[in-house]
Amino acid sequence: MNKESVGIVETKYLDISDPIVLDSGKTLEEVTVAYETYGELNKEKSNAILICHALTGDAHAAGWHNGDRKPGWWEMVIGPGKALDSEKYFIICSNVLGGCKGTTGPSSINPKTGKEYGLDFPVITINDMVKVQKKLVDSFGIDQLAAVVGGSMGGMQVLEWIVSYPKMMKKAIAIATTGMSSPQQIAFNAVGRQAIFSDPSWNDGNYYDSCEIPSNGLSIARMIAHITYLSDESMDIKFGRGLQDKDEISYDFSVDFQVESYLKHQGESFVKRFDANSYLFITKAVDLFDLSVNDSLIDGFKDVEANVKIISVDTDWLYPTDQCMEIVTALNANNVDVSFSEVKSNYGHDAFLLEKGQLNYIFANFLSENVVDDLMMEKIAKIKEGSDVVEAAKLMLDKNVTHIPVVSDDDKLIGIVTSWDLSKSIATGTNRLKDIMTKNVEYCHADDAIEEIARKMRKLDISCLPVVDEDMKVLGLITTDQISNLLS
Amino acid sequence: MNKESVGIVETKYLDISDPIVLDSGKTLEEVTVAYETYGELNKEKSNAILICHALTGDAHAAGWHNGDRKPGWWEMVIGPGKALDSEKYFIICSNVLGGCKGTTGPSSINPKTGKEYGLDFPVITINDMVKVQKKLVDSFGIDQLAAVVGGSMGGMQVLEWIVSYPKMMKKAIAIATTGMSSPQQIAFNAVGRQAIFSDPSWNDGNYYDSCEIPSNGLSIARMIAHITYLSDESMDIKFGRGLQDKDEISYDFSVDFQVESYLKHQGESFVKRFDANSYLFITKAVDLFDLSVNDSLIDGFKDVEANVKIISVDTDWLYPTDQCMEIVTALNANNVDVSFSEVKSNYGHDAFLLEKGQLNYIFANFLSENVVDDLMMEKIAKIKEGSDVVEAAKLMLDKNVTHIPVVSDDDKLIGIVTSWDLSKSIATGTNRLKDIMTKNVEYCHADDAIEEIARKMRKLDISCLPVVDEDMKVLGLITTDQISNLLS
Repeated sequence: MNKESVGIVETKYLDISDPIVLDSGKTLEEVTVAYETYGELNKEKSNAILICHALTGDAHAAGWHNGDRKPGWWEMVIGPGKALDSEKYFIICSNVLGGCKGTTGPSSINPKTGKEYGLDFPVITINDMVKVQKKLVDSFGIDQLAAVVGGSMGGMQVLEWIVSYPKMMKKAIAIATTGMSSPQQIAFNAVGRQAIFSDPSWNDGNYYDSCEIPSNGLSIARMIAHITYLSDESMDIKFGRGLQDKDEISYDFSVDFQVESYLKHQGESFVKRFDANSYLFITKAVDLFDLSVNDSLIDGFKDVEANVKIISVDTDWLYPTDQCMEIVTALNANNVDVSFSEVKSNYGHDAFLLEKGQLNYIFANFLSENVVDDLMMEKIAKIKEGSDVVEAAKLMLDKNVTHIPVVSDDDKLIGIVTSWDLSKSIATGTNRLKDIMTKNVEYCHADDAIEEIARKMRKLDISCLPVVDEDMKVLGLITTDQISNLLS
Repeated sequence: MNKESVGIVETKYLDISDPIVLDSGKTLEEVTVAYETYGELNKEKSNAILICHALTGDAHAAGWHNGDRKPGWWEMVIGPGKALDSEKYFIICSNVLGGCKGTTGPSSINPKTGKEYGLDFPVITINDMVKVQKKLVDSFGIDQLAAVVGGSMGGMQVLEWIVSYPKMMKKAIAIATTGMSSPQQIAFNAVGRQAIFSDPSWNDGNYYDSCEIPSNGLSIARMIAHITYLSDESMDIKFGRGLQDKDEISYDFSVDFQVESYLKHQGESFVKRFDANSYLFITKAVDLFDLSVNDSLIDGFKDVEANVKIISVDTDWLYPTDQCMEIVTALNANNVDVSFSEVKSNYGHDAFLLEKGQLNYIFANFLSENVVDDLMMEKIAKIKEGSDVVEAAKLMLDKNVTHIPVVSDDDKLIGIVTSWDLSKSIATGTNRLKDIMTKNVEYCHADDAIEEIARKMRKLDISCLPVVDEDMKVLGLITTDQISNLLS
């Protein structure tokens, strides 16, 4: 555990008392939601971020469960000082409906029978998952989330959120995902389900009382899916054609290659932590996911109000950049405030769980609420254009500043003078301020985003910007020192 | 059956009497090869083309088996008038070693036990398959093949051929393939095998006496593989998110989408025609395939002598263009006469079985042996440069030609005169041939390839080219009419 972690956490449970009417028309009378939270909800209840997990994730997104050897699945972006900063935000992550990590799913007890649901569990949709998350968010008395964030199937939930509850979030980040499952994506899931169906131990979903679980089927389903999470490149880099625990090919059907051994291990360890029926229900929800209306994603996104960031991974072939761009295009067509970033990575789809640096950077910039107004110095020294160099030098010394805006008689910005300019005046023997000041002065406005201004200053290599109003009247100054204090 | 088909064909069988020593060190004492041939072997035995089939193919590459409703698997490129022209070539295709379509494989009777081999069949390699094909080719008394051609696993056999028997072929065409199986390719095969291993009916490969075959496992293996044969685009075009035999999602685990139904059908029909153990052995051979020597494909290809054509498919993500280009690069580094073409197709990997037009075109151009010498008219009219227009006109009329090369006194080409030039002379009142003939005349040589010359003439929009020797002496003429007669 390192000091940037939220530390020891526990999964909590919410029993939702009112029935959930599902997209299928069926009703779940009792639903329990497993969830975790990190950080504190502020008084205004305005700092909550909801994290949505992928296919086989859970509520444990960050921190450490007592005694565990691994932290939560998105530890790399959640915690003090990280993009999803638990000292700033109240972060919520819940296990999805249909899951097997504490939220009601096919392995939960059906209150009507006193036995596990199995296949009696209703087929659910991504929208149903989101309905349950909404109840959880409501339970905190939160009227609007600061953001909803998720990758892969988590990204689908994010998109469902912005469509179903357009006013419920200020911002949304969807990573490596799609607005509707493609036939290829459906195909991989369908074969995975077929592998489970074909396992005799699956027994039509009734295996909870048995000593045999459908490990073979589930393991094969996981192996298939796992291939789609990796890029060709990452497999080449990781395994190449390396042999597993042997120097030569053995000319039998034992494992020859490292990649075989790795996949087998992935399959075998997965069955220890995941329920086969949950896998069926959740992959089905993914397949059914389609936000288009009248075959149009543009129509599907017409009510979106959130400020949206879509992120793709250049080597992701499961949810490729093209598909992410379709979301961007459809949101753009609705005049939604949407921006797009592509993560450069060898990892393929899995990059959303691995590319710490890029994701923290993109998240932090996008989530930042800071505008120049929050940061600028308002009580600053100004000097009139008619002043002489000696006056400027005295003012600098007096106020201990290196930049002084030069203003006209009606207080409008006409230039800036720096200690460097004053040095020049000595060298050239000039006494008039107008002769040495910078006239084509750069400036910014109070409502500019800090990130944008930081980029501008970096680009122009300047350390101080006057802040002006619409009439060019000087309101204050902003410096790179202030910005770097904020960003660190 | 259409008239371009080789018609009704039968699979024949060759019993190889001498033992085959396999790469594993084991020996197969008796091997039967199932094969088909189309066309006639010429007297010189120089017109044989060997076709190598892909993972689940067979010897029946073209024509029709009596009573069948479908022709052979590569009917689109084999037959009278097609690129692999049975009126010109003697075409051989055999089922691979380890297969289940007549050639010895795990479902064959082990002479030592009198029962099916099952897992007692030795693990084989692509090289072992090629060794058996070599015996078949030898049985015809063929010293050198005109070409070896194949796609996917067939392409691997082609590459193995040019490495193992560098003098055995003039030309080789390998399509949508690789010089070594990548970890991603191995991964897909490994999961497929795992699905078969996991099927209780597989019973360690002993199912031939049983009424249960491992249909579930084999079907899942096929479904996985089938996804990799199709491009994302082709699936979108073919299925989109269309529902199968229903108007609405049914919210259960029956088949919702057309793509699910299609894949399921692919799996189910495959188990009727393929043996699960053969699938294990053949995919293993593919995984073991690696022509690199000291981790270098360049070293692996150092003995290649054939003229090689490598073809990729732009949307193939199983054997992508990048991987095909690695073969080209490695052959180039060895100064092998290699050329590359990329088929443009939506179909993905399967394009090598579907893109009739492009493949026929690329094959025909590459296989063509025609040089200008074979086609040019040798007895042609020539005229000396000092002649006048009237002489030229008389000669044209006399010989019934429209183009006459103009030569110097020592018979070297200095220009060409056409009927069009003569018309000009009338208009301008000129009498001297030198004033109206084309002086910067294009020409070609007797050993130029017809295809190249045809391209040049098309590009320059000219219908007739003088053929000259190294001293610019005129040997004959070649016209677009002759070329188009040849190509049609």
